[in-house]
Amino acid sequence: MIRVGIYGYGNLGRGVEHAVRRSEDCELKAVFTRRDPSSVKIATPGVPVYSADSAAEHKDEIDVLILCGGSANDLPAQTPAMARLFNVVDSFDTHARIPEHFANVDKAAKEGGRTAAISIGWDPGLFSLLRLLSNAVLPDGADYTFWGKGVSQGHSDAVRRIDGVKDARQYTIPVESALEAARSGSRPELSTRQKHTRECFVVAEEGADKARIENEIKTMPNYFADYDTTVHFISQEELDRDHKGIPHGGFVIRTGEVGDGTNKAVMEFSLKLDSNPEFTSSVLLAYARAVYRLNSEGSTGCKTIFDIPAAYLINKSAEDLRAHML
Amino acid sequence: MIRVGIYGYGNLGRGVEHAVRRSEDCELKAVFTRRDPSSVKIATPGVPVYSADSAAEHKDEIDVLILCGGSANDLPAQTPAMARLFNVVDSFDTHARIPEHFANVDKAAKEGGRTAAISIGWDPGLFSLLRLLSNAVLPDGADYTFWGKGVSQGHSDAVRRIDGVKDARQYTIPVESALEAARSGSRPELSTRQKHTRECFVVAEEGADKARIENEIKTMPNYFADYDTTVHFISQEELDRDHKGIPHGGFVIRTGEVGDGTNKAVMEFSLKLDSNPEFTSSVLLAYARAVYRLNSEGSTGCKTIFDIPAAYLINKSAEDLRAHML
Repeated sequence: MIRVGIYGYGNLGRGVEHAVRRSEDCELKAVFTRRDPSSVKIATPGVPVYSADSAAEHKDEIDVLILCGGSANDLPAQTPAMARLFNVVDSFDTHARIPEHFANVDKAAKEGGRTAAISIGWDPGLFSLLRLLSNAVLPDGADYTFWGKGVSQGHSDAVRRIDGVKDARQYTIPVESALEAARSGSRPELSTRQKHTRECFVVAEEGADKARIENEIKTMPNYFADYDTTVHFISQEELDRDHKGIPHGGFVIRTGEVGDGTNKAVMEFSLKLDSNPEFTSSVLLAYARAVYRLNSEGSTGCKTIFDIPAAYLINKSAEDLRAHML
Repeated sequence: MIRVGIYGYGNLGRGVEHAVRRSEDCELKAVFTRRDPSSVKIATPGVPVYSADSAAEHKDEIDVLILCGGSANDLPAQTPAMARLFNVVDSFDTHARIPEHFANVDKAAKEGGRTAAISIGWDPGLFSLLRLLSNAVLPDGADYTFWGKGVSQGHSDAVRRIDGVKDARQYTIPVESALEAARSGSRPELSTRQKHTRECFVVAEEGADKARIENEIKTMPNYFADYDTTVHFISQEELDRDHKGIPHGGFVIRTGEVGDGTNKAVMEFSLKLDSNPEFTSSVLLAYARAVYRLNSEGSTGCKTIFDIPAAYLINKSAEDLRAHML
């Protein structure tokens, strides 16, 4: 059994807890929290909740620690600190800062003789892997990534910060005609605006000026000004009833030429997720298994999804995989 | 530059030749044929064509040899024989015999200090990889593979063997409603018949009994009897004009439960290929690059697509990949 620890018990941490329960070769050994441990009730009976500060004391009880904090404030410090003590996996998703984060985690993991995998999830993560695979197979081609339909927490938060807004939920939606254009093989240039629309469901405060709120949303730089945005005002009850989930998904498409250029090929990978964090957690656990195995073989330092063979992700022997899955 | 050799110059070999031309880090060094070398004209000026029997004499001129023969009669003997002398890649696709083929190639490659990758292409190949990835991430779920729309050479050949048939082309076509059922997450049990239909374009010989031919096709055991089959009689001119290509493709779909089971996820990978052999060739070359690199690092023996990290497939540095593709 692979002894798993969870560091940070929010949506992602709870998702990892469920994913561990679904995996016959993994068991949850501990949850670490920065809150008062006695205030955190977890779903798995008999598993201790410890203070994050005490993690080092438990390093010999855990084969791999899954870091479930946020990329903005938590992971840049937490992952290197923990990678000195544990094999770790994180879902660091600030694309521009990945090289710096990789260097920090790699140094710490190597010093500790540990193995780490960063930026695991679906984007970065499975989408990155499919981008690489399709570029390797089709060097003459064009890439397209679409996101959605799904909830963007950042955009939802931005709407909530507008004066007079009580609550809000924002969906990013791929434009069907842009998807078709991407798949056509004609290699169209598609702007972000052409590829996605944005839809907001807003609960206004009593007496708030809805026209002003709608205008502030639609003209908000970076978040909405470059998109076709639709705003719906609904009641808190409707928001809670119809928009409580955290769905997401998307498409990675590459088209390219093969042979003498007469023939084309389209490679497409898509996800449709009822729960973004629960799916991300499932990916994290598969790569946690890989990180543990790589460390057992003496391969230390920081890895990405590009460096890890698929065979390490699953609880089956190489013989079994060749006989039944190849 | 990675020095590539092609062993067998049919559709697949010609596809590899084009793929090499599209790859900045690869060069074609030689083509090996079992025909009279002087009778084989290749598309790349200045590259020698040698007799297959003389391959051993050229082993130091080639970094990786791509085997482009057939799975039924060529590869079971050719791949082990060549894996003793060269790093090799093949597209062995007889699923039931993969374990035996793996063992033979692994032994030969280890004895020769070489690296081999077998069963590379799209199924087995990229489809296998996606089946593994989606099973690792969604252990509680159901798998579906659909093929087509595409030409099945085996089924086309079977129709051509019927008395009175001059020429024929058979397409395997996925059933749209079955695709939708697979994506629904309801985990339907779908038989092969429910998932695919078959469409035949047949050129009958002058005066042949078309009703008998159609009946023989539709009732042919293994090939057609278990499917809804449509038969169209057309002229040779129409067949040559409209059905000359070798398109193919398909879908790998896995749906599964995440979290406490309330939420589902759908992972889908699809290919749409104007030319089945030209795309397969492109996959073979990407894995040839990986095989060469693995051998350079001292990793010998036989590998499958499950064993090879994606980073090895592409002509970019790890730093570049992390900065721009992750």
